[in-house]
Amino acid sequence: MRTGINHLFIPGPTNVPETVRQAMNVPMQDHRAHDFGGLNLGIFADLKRLFRTTTGQVLLFPGSGTGAWEAAITNALSPGDRVLMARHGHFSVLWAQMALRLGLNVDLIDLPWGAGAPISEFARKLGADTNGEIKAVFVTHNETATGVTSDIAAVRRVMEESLHDALLFVDGVSSIGCLPFEMDDWGVDLAVTGSQKGLMMPPGLGILGVSAKAMKASQAATMRRAYFDFADQVSGNETGYFPYTPPIQLLHGLRAALDRMQDEGFDTIIARHRRLAAGVRAAVQAWGLEVCAESPTLYSDTVTAIRTPAGVDARDVIRIGYDRYNAAFGSGLGPLAGKVFRIGHIGDSNEGMCLTAIALAELSLAAAGASIRFGSGVAAAQEVYALPAPEPAQIAAE
Amino acid sequence: MRTGINHLFIPGPTNVPETVRQAMNVPMQDHRAHDFGGLNLGIFADLKRLFRTTTGQVLLFPGSGTGAWEAAITNALSPGDRVLMARHGHFSVLWAQMALRLGLNVDLIDLPWGAGAPISEFARKLGADTNGEIKAVFVTHNETATGVTSDIAAVRRVMEESLHDALLFVDGVSSIGCLPFEMDDWGVDLAVTGSQKGLMMPPGLGILGVSAKAMKASQAATMRRAYFDFADQVSGNETGYFPYTPPIQLLHGLRAALDRMQDEGFDTIIARHRRLAAGVRAAVQAWGLEVCAESPTLYSDTVTAIRTPAGVDARDVIRIGYDRYNAAFGSGLGPLAGKVFRIGHIGDSNEGMCLTAIALAELSLAAAGASIRFGSGVAAAQEVYALPAPEPAQIAAE
Amino acid sequence: MRTGINHLFIPGPTNVPETVRQAMNVPMQDHRAHDFGGLNLGIFADLKRLFRTTTGQVLLFPGSGTGAWEAAITNALSPGDRVLMARHGHFSVLWAQMALRLGLNVDLIDLPWGAGAPISEFARKLGADTNGEIKAVFVTHNETATGVTSDIAAVRRVMEESLHDALLFVDGVSSIGCLPFEMDDWGVDLAVTGSQKGLMMPPGLGILGVSAKAMKASQAATMRRAYFDFADQVSGNETGYFPYTPPIQLLHGLRAALDRMQDEGFDTIIARHRRLAAGVRAAVQAWGLEVCAESPTLYSDTVTAIRTPAGVDARDVIRIGYDRYNAAFGSGLGPLAGKVFRIGHIGDSNEGMCLTAIALAELSLAAAGASIRFGSGVAAAQEVYALPAPEPAQIAAE
Amino acid sequence: MRTGINHLFIPGPTNVPETVRQAMNVPMQDHRAHDFGGLNLGIFADLKRLFRTTTGQVLLFPGSGTGAWEAAITNALSPGDRVLMARHGHFSVLWAQMALRLGLNVDLIDLPWGAGAPISEFARKLGADTNGEIKAVFVTHNETATGVTSDIAAVRRVMEESLHDALLFVDGVSSIGCLPFEMDDWGVDLAVTGSQKGLMMPPGLGILGVSAKAMKASQAATMRRAYFDFADQVSGNETGYFPYTPPIQLLHGLRAALDRMQDEGFDTIIARHRRLAAGVRAAVQAWGLEVCAESPTLYSDTVTAIRTPAGVDARDVIRIGYDRYNAAFGSGLGPLAGKVFRIGHIGDSNEGMCLTAIALAELSLAAAGASIRFGSGVAAAQEVYALPAPEPAQIAAE
Repeated sequence: MRTGINHLFIPGPTNVPETVRQAMNVPMQDHRAHDFGGLNLGIFADLKRLFRTTTGQVLLFPGSGTGAWEAAITNALSPGDRVLMARHGHFSVLWAQMALRLGLNVDLIDLPWGAGAPISEFARKLGADTNGEIKAVFVTHNETATGVTSDIAAVRRVMEESLHDALLFVDGVSSIGCLPFEMDDWGVDLAVTGSQKGLMMPPGLGILGVSAKAMKASQAATMRRAYFDFADQVSGNETGYFPYTPPIQLLHGLRAALDRMQDEGFDTIIARHRRLAAGVRAAVQAWGLEVCAESPTLYSDTVTAIRTPAGVDARDVIRIGYDRYNAAFGSGLGPLAGKVFRIGHIGDSNEGMCLTAIALAELSLAAAGASIRFGSGVAAAQEVYALPAPEPAQIAAE
Repeated sequence: MRTGINHLFIPGPTNVPETVRQAMNVPMQDHRAHDFGGLNLGIFADLKRLFRTTTGQVLLFPGSGTGAWEAAITNALSPGDRVLMARHGHFSVLWAQMALRLGLNVDLIDLPWGAGAPISEFARKLGADTNGEIKAVFVTHNETATGVTSDIAAVRRVMEESLHDALLFVDGVSSIGCLPFEMDDWGVDLAVTGSQKGLMMPPGLGILGVSAKAMKASQAATMRRAYFDFADQVSGNETGYFPYTPPIQLLHGLRAALDRMQDEGFDTIIARHRRLAAGVRAAVQAWGLEVCAESPTLYSDTVTAIRTPAGVDARDVIRIGYDRYNAAFGSGLGPLAGKVFRIGHIGDSNEGMCLTAIALAELSLAAAGASIRFGSGVAAAQEVYALPAPEPAQIAAE
Repeated sequence: MRTGINHLFIPGPTNVPETVRQAMNVPMQDHRAHDFGGLNLGIFADLKRLFRTTTGQVLLFPGSGTGAWEAAITNALSPGDRVLMARHGHFSVLWAQMALRLGLNVDLIDLPWGAGAPISEFARKLGADTNGEIKAVFVTHNETATGVTSDIAAVRRVMEESLHDALLFVDGVSSIGCLPFEMDDWGVDLAVTGSQKGLMMPPGLGILGVSAKAMKASQAATMRRAYFDFADQVSGNETGYFPYTPPIQLLHGLRAALDRMQDEGFDTIIARHRRLAAGVRAAVQAWGLEVCAESPTLYSDTVTAIRTPAGVDARDVIRIGYDRYNAAFGSGLGPLAGKVFRIGHIGDSNEGMCLTAIALAELSLAAAGASIRFGSGVAAAQEVYALPAPEPAQIAAE
Repeated sequence: MRTGINHLFIPGPTNVPETVRQAMNVPMQDHRAHDFGGLNLGIFADLKRLFRTTTGQVLLFPGSGTGAWEAAITNALSPGDRVLMARHGHFSVLWAQMALRLGLNVDLIDLPWGAGAPISEFARKLGADTNGEIKAVFVTHNETATGVTSDIAAVRRVMEESLHDALLFVDGVSSIGCLPFEMDDWGVDLAVTGSQKGLMMPPGLGILGVSAKAMKASQAATMRRAYFDFADQVSGNETGYFPYTPPIQLLHGLRAALDRMQDEGFDTIIARHRRLAAGVRAAVQAWGLEVCAESPTLYSDTVTAIRTPAGVDARDVIRIGYDRYNAAFGSGLGPLAGKVFRIGHIGDSNEGMCLTAIALAELSLAAAGASIRFGSGVAAAQEVYALPAPEPAQIAAE
């Protein structure tokens, strides 16, 4: 029988703060009442702050992040449109699969899992596309399966350098609200996230930042859509309402999550993720293990994907963690199954939680046959966490 | 400032039972863990019992009932397919609009709002369709906007009489789990509902019963789809999993809701709805007002739409109820705005709650200018509720 | 099986507002942490506002209101002290019983149940006590068993007129936070309440207002005490702490309850109770039944005790309400068992809830054999509730 | 700002399991309803199983464990009774102080803080008491301040050897439900606990096991009492009711806590506490620090009190843990302030939580100036936790 805290170290759904849990535990209410819109107008305004956009707008779809992917595609593109995508992890693979299913002409770049977005290959293709056939570039900002963060600003730069007019689609599911994300500055046109990651809520909301350019494109886009139609949302959202019954509970949770994030400060949140991630990576290094990400510049501050040593099945590590130590680690997805386990350090976390993850990973790795010196990873992380957390002022000055 | 209970008399989202609220208030967990599938296998099995199908299966989509509408259409039909639909209320209008947007060739029958499904017109059209061009008949089982329940068995009967092979789509959003619903016996191919009505949960899950015939049709159907694709769900569901992150919280709530429903008994639930509705209708009669439904055989046991007397704006009734008496009545939708207010007696309700609705409606009607004798509707409903509730044995014998 | 809202019309524990429920649903925390005291200092300050005292202080004891009775007696009096008490209801009887058990010399005035505090008899006894033998006068401000509110200001007046120095003990369990209560103005020395009435929380906290005079008396009082000792509390409370582990959950609930009360305004709360009670009393009158309270000046605005007609057992009314209609009415206590049922209109209530109580009481009375015209009480209450609730400005001007 | 889990390592209030939290989050109900007693009869029966008594009974007092101390004393003893007590920690000191205040003639044995109950000194005094003047022996089973578990069976043995008839009072606040406790076998007459330790609930219930002998003694005992009177409770409890409003919320929590404990198995719970404690003690040893307990036979499996090295103020350790690492360690009480910090491993805990405590203690100790090798304690505990947890069958066979 399980006792004590269920230690949750998957990179989403993430741990839900108490205030968010409380806020969601409410009776139902009339979603057409005259005072319901005010709640949502506030949410929209704060989401724009979070996405760092003043010119775009943020839409909410009852559904998962996958639904938001579909909303982005079906509203902004037309069947047969050529789009540029790279596959370098489970989630970029799935998004590409969706693009194909929805009838796009996908120009695919396949990379090793662990690589980042192929900036120069993008540059080359965009530069070669002198007729502007490429309608959109898709980038997975943070590949949750491999723990790789790609450089969106660089993608925008190469788009600018080739004077290319394509739309920029960004999957920010495991980055927005945790890692630096600059929708306006980076010229992101469609920014996708979900409720269950950096926003620290249960799954159930697909969230989409839409630039003015993308919104305009949606008027011409001919892909069939109904549930995910932008126009219906936009029309209702103006006064804080929705075209169909919204997930009321989650809206209250989102309100509480945004309050909590603004109390902490977006920059402080980013700095906290950086600090916590550094501790986890120090542990991996102390163990003598490898992370999936090909180079330090790609290291994700929200999730670390760790390769188990030869002969050690990562599925055993995960199963032992779960069954013996009441700890959920993320699994290796697709071709990484058995080779990788993941530690999420995303959302509502702290030093103690990361140290627990590391300590229980050590026990699970050892029990799965890895040669791990107990406490070695913990000690390495403690060295990081012994340093004082940066003060807001320092963070602002960076 | 509002004090006391927020009286919720809209026909959905409905009141959430305490056990369901408790069940949803849980920390997040790993939706890929080896013991997560068991929860869902039990849910699927019980949902089949609720839909009354042994040969079909039930799918869950993170989203609203509108999403389940779209899942039904996009999986079972192809662009340009001719389908038969009637418009006789807000929700049948919206479903038809979606069908048009998704590229169906919609054969529309327009009826007064308050009418039921046009059985003989359906019969005529199906009989005339000797080439089998009609691929599907769409029926709104319970039109929530008008409080009208249509006779699905009769629709199936005329389909059989004309030996027609079309698929039968049924919107059971405000009927399933409250009114008699027989997916297998009535030959329903696509049965749509949502979490926030008879299932007594917050919004956020679209639920779809799919017959074997519809499932087979989905393999040939060519409408583009990704998020709502049946095949992805079916493949995951076999072991209790999902193709993308499910709304974990709602799954726990659904488990608790189904437990509660099975404790009460599906037949007892139906009998309870009938009894509670009878009281509300008695009140309307005592007031000398009219319901929207054209005839007693169409009366819905989940929602009653009440026409305000000439000169009384139903929006005033609703606003007064909300602002002065902390009570949410359903509004008149579309062309019924200002002419109708609605009392939901759906889901987790009882005599006291219906009497509260009636008593507060009397106060609100009077304040909005209607000539209502205080207590008259309450007394009429009390006569109904003074009779003993039927025992399960009686119900079973009916 | 019960469905829908459990209608709670007992005069305590009362209905707990959602915000209070949410606030109590928190993980445990260190009650010795350096930031825990701040929470409680705020609570103490606001409780003083609620009790309307600037010179006294308010203490919190884990326990029930009965515990607070004992704390009042054991800290402020010595064994053998002569005290003046009246018995005119279940709770005044119990307090007198406790005083006897604890060794006081109780000068008892027995009155019919339904009478108020015997002001002139108090005056006579106090006037006759020229040697100051009477150390305390005990008054039950609101006798919950009979729905009788006594005039505390009048008691203080006769004490002053006889220049008597006794302490004034007041049981304000079902009055404080609902009815006018003026600890300083009325010269109340020991004011007792509990968490589960006007403060709208679960039971578990005994709350005690202590005047400076009573606090001083406690230093000389020789009754043995430990758990309920004032000095231990006072010493800890100075910085916001307690001599033993406090009920953390309830402290958070109390914080939320006080916030909600201050948002509504204490005067508005009192006016609301007056209005809601007036409706319930109008219903009783319409039924042709009698309340327990002997005269209108004694009518309680928090609870109405209703005598059933001859031949109708009030226990049947209560049982039918509970078993058939999911409604809890207060029972007749002691000699009133079978003769009286009670409707609480205390705490977090509104018009709809009172109308529900009345409508379900009509059904239950009728089923128990009373001759009640359905809707008659409801209509009478509706006449009251059709009048607009007073605005804060009006209330302030009263 | 605090983020993530508030790590709670104080030895009470302990972490509340989710199921218990859910069970407490309920609306209020009528505590006099005919179906309320059933809940409590089940609780009483299960508490007897937990206390391991078939001949005694268990009483529940709204209040803290301190209240249960007072209930034990005031019901079973008379003023001036001679009782035997030892002082060897904060809580034994407080209980003795209460006994003095309540007028007992306390025969006090003072011991170093860290010692266990003085068995031979008890033997000597009891042997010398040939007139049976000693009415009761008081023992603190688990001294929460020092992490010392005393041998209650041995105390009973010396009482038997001297054929002494005194009552045996045992403070089991931080032992019952975690450590072996045998009320009948050890002849415990008054066994005290509270809700917020092994029962994993919020504070607010004092719980008392009363032997038949103690119950009989209560009839003759002349100490004044009212709130804590046994007879009132016993009389109400027979049918599952209480003499005054019980803390309804906590009763539901207690039901859930007992269910959870019975699911795990009382013996398994004890084995789990032993295993977790062993890990924490291994860490302390690895750090080269001392525990408070004088010898291994006294080590408590619910709390470990750790002496900081010379020059390191334990208050700094605690403050740093709280402010920097969001972790609450127990403080050194009374003379141990500044010299000791405590780690609770009591109630709803697991390996991960103990490792978190150890890892954060290392960080806090180091920051407070102690020379601690990071990871050293963690590694030592991991060696313990790497061993498989004992199976129920093994436990039963022990």
